[in-house]
Amino acid sequence: MTLIDGKQTAADIRLELKREVDSMLRQGMRPPHLAVVIVGHNPASETYVENKLKACREVGFLADKVALEADITEQQLLQTVERLNRDDEIDGFIVQLPLPDHISESRITQAIDWHKDVDGLHPHNVGLTALGQPSLVSATPKGIRELLSRYHIPTEGRHVVVVGRSNIVGKPMAMLLMQKPYLSLPKMSAAALGDATVTLCHSKTRNLKDICLTADILIVAVGQPALITADMVREGTVVIDVGINRIEDAVAPRGYRLVGDVDFKEVAPKCSYITPVPGGVGPMTIVSLLQNTLQARLNK
Amino acid sequence: MTLIDGKQTAADIRLELKREVDSMLRQGMRPPHLAVVIVGHNPASETYVENKLKACREVGFLADKVALEADITEQQLLQTVERLNRDDEIDGFIVQLPLPDHISESRITQAIDWHKDVDGLHPHNVGLTALGQPSLVSATPKGIRELLSRYHIPTEGRHVVVVGRSNIVGKPMAMLLMQKPYLSLPKMSAAALGDATVTLCHSKTRNLKDICLTADILIVAVGQPALITADMVREGTVVIDVGINRIEDAVAPRGYRLVGDVDFKEVAPKCSYITPVPGGVGPMTIVSLLQNTLQARLNK
Repeated sequence: MTLIDGKQTAADIRLELKREVDSMLRQGMRPPHLAVVIVGHNPASETYVENKLKACREVGFLADKVALEADITEQQLLQTVERLNRDDEIDGFIVQLPLPDHISESRITQAIDWHKDVDGLHPHNVGLTALGQPSLVSATPKGIRELLSRYHIPTEGRHVVVVGRSNIVGKPMAMLLMQKPYLSLPKMSAAALGDATVTLCHSKTRNLKDICLTADILIVAVGQPALITADMVREGTVVIDVGINRIEDAVAPRGYRLVGDVDFKEVAPKCSYITPVPGGVGPMTIVSLLQNTLQARLNK
Repeated sequence: MTLIDGKQTAADIRLELKREVDSMLRQGMRPPHLAVVIVGHNPASETYVENKLKACREVGFLADKVALEADITEQQLLQTVERLNRDDEIDGFIVQLPLPDHISESRITQAIDWHKDVDGLHPHNVGLTALGQPSLVSATPKGIRELLSRYHIPTEGRHVVVVGRSNIVGKPMAMLLMQKPYLSLPKMSAAALGDATVTLCHSKTRNLKDICLTADILIVAVGQPALITADMVREGTVVIDVGINRIEDAVAPRGYRLVGDVDFKEVAPKCSYITPVPGGVGPMTIVSLLQNTLQARLNK
């Protein structure tokens, strides 16, 4: 069994990005520039935003925070989005979710110029992904594709079972891996992965166990601790665990510990590869955002 | 075994559309208005276009043909698209494919205002479909969903196996049926279908037979006669055959006959429901276009 080390892979990618920025600077190019819009003072959101800005600066990107108060109107937020759309110095930007209840997330997401939509949530980017065309792909599925690629795990003709149908993980993951790969790319580059037979399962699925037992690669993104038990996994399966669940634990330093959707202790011995939680998929999401920002910069 | 009669279903829907138009006219509303752009003189395309225009007029829609010569430049075609985008009297329009080689189909498709994209091929509409939001859905998957609905074939929790991953049938079909249904709609209305476990298979799939044998609903859109044989179908399966293949037949009036991707004679006795070819899915595509045009009219 090989443990897929997301933390190390993310560090490798940050180093590659830093080298890329250094090379841009030597050629007299402006480095990639991300803006992050945050509305209100949700502590979790503030932490995420600071982490994203810090990650940008560490690899040499320019990074701005646009902080707005929670009582801003939808119209005012749309004006901010419009200003960022028009600003040629900004390559990409994100509006940190969730937004206050009086603002429509889908209206805001759709107002972003899709060329700058580095979260990959705009319907135009989602549609390009579904059509098998180059697009800005949302962070988690992009990061998982990168892990599969860097661990040389082929997907062609493999049966990939995706459990969970969220718009940010399950559905785009299924869409990415069912496509014909871009033939112009090196065989095992991330964007060249695809050609998998894909099954998407969710809360209404019957016989989840039987379906999981047919998987060559099992990707679980539900948010339910120990949903996947050892009897649901065949010997040799590749397991990608996207869940990040807090479990109360009196002896843990913060009173809780993080677990995935997979019963790691029981399942891991049966796997050919498995991602741990934490340290598997999680660290990949911010580097995906960085990669998208670089891509948006180079697409100009 | 019940034969799914697409011809009769399409006729029923045309009658409903005609009633809807009559009601609009009584309320002093302008009827839906479609424009069809055709470039060059491909005989098959000319026939398709005439059939679409005729179907529009029969239900009381306004319908214009915009005929352009094959040597038009991409820029000129883009100008036509722009003119139709701006024309408030046009609710929807399509550019008949294929286009001459010197014109990029994806550039033209993406230039269409997605609100008027009644073929449902614009990335924005494809993305909305993938995100489970209201959208203009491409004709064939929309027609199949309508057939399932009108024959009261539930999809919730059922295992749907889609064979073929084209952008106009396989992929949007898979995306439609995996979604959470719109809960505000009547239970068996077409747009309320969904909640299926979906497997997408294609040319790289291994063990196609084993996967087909697990299907409750099998949807085949490959373009290969007799791809699906009796040994690949379990008793009681619902089979939707999207293929339309010409087979040489010296005794047929035109020297050929049409067959689907399913070996109908052998497979049909095992099915609970099956679509014939011709007369199954085929007749539904034009009524889907009409329904989309009405939807674009009402969305204004």
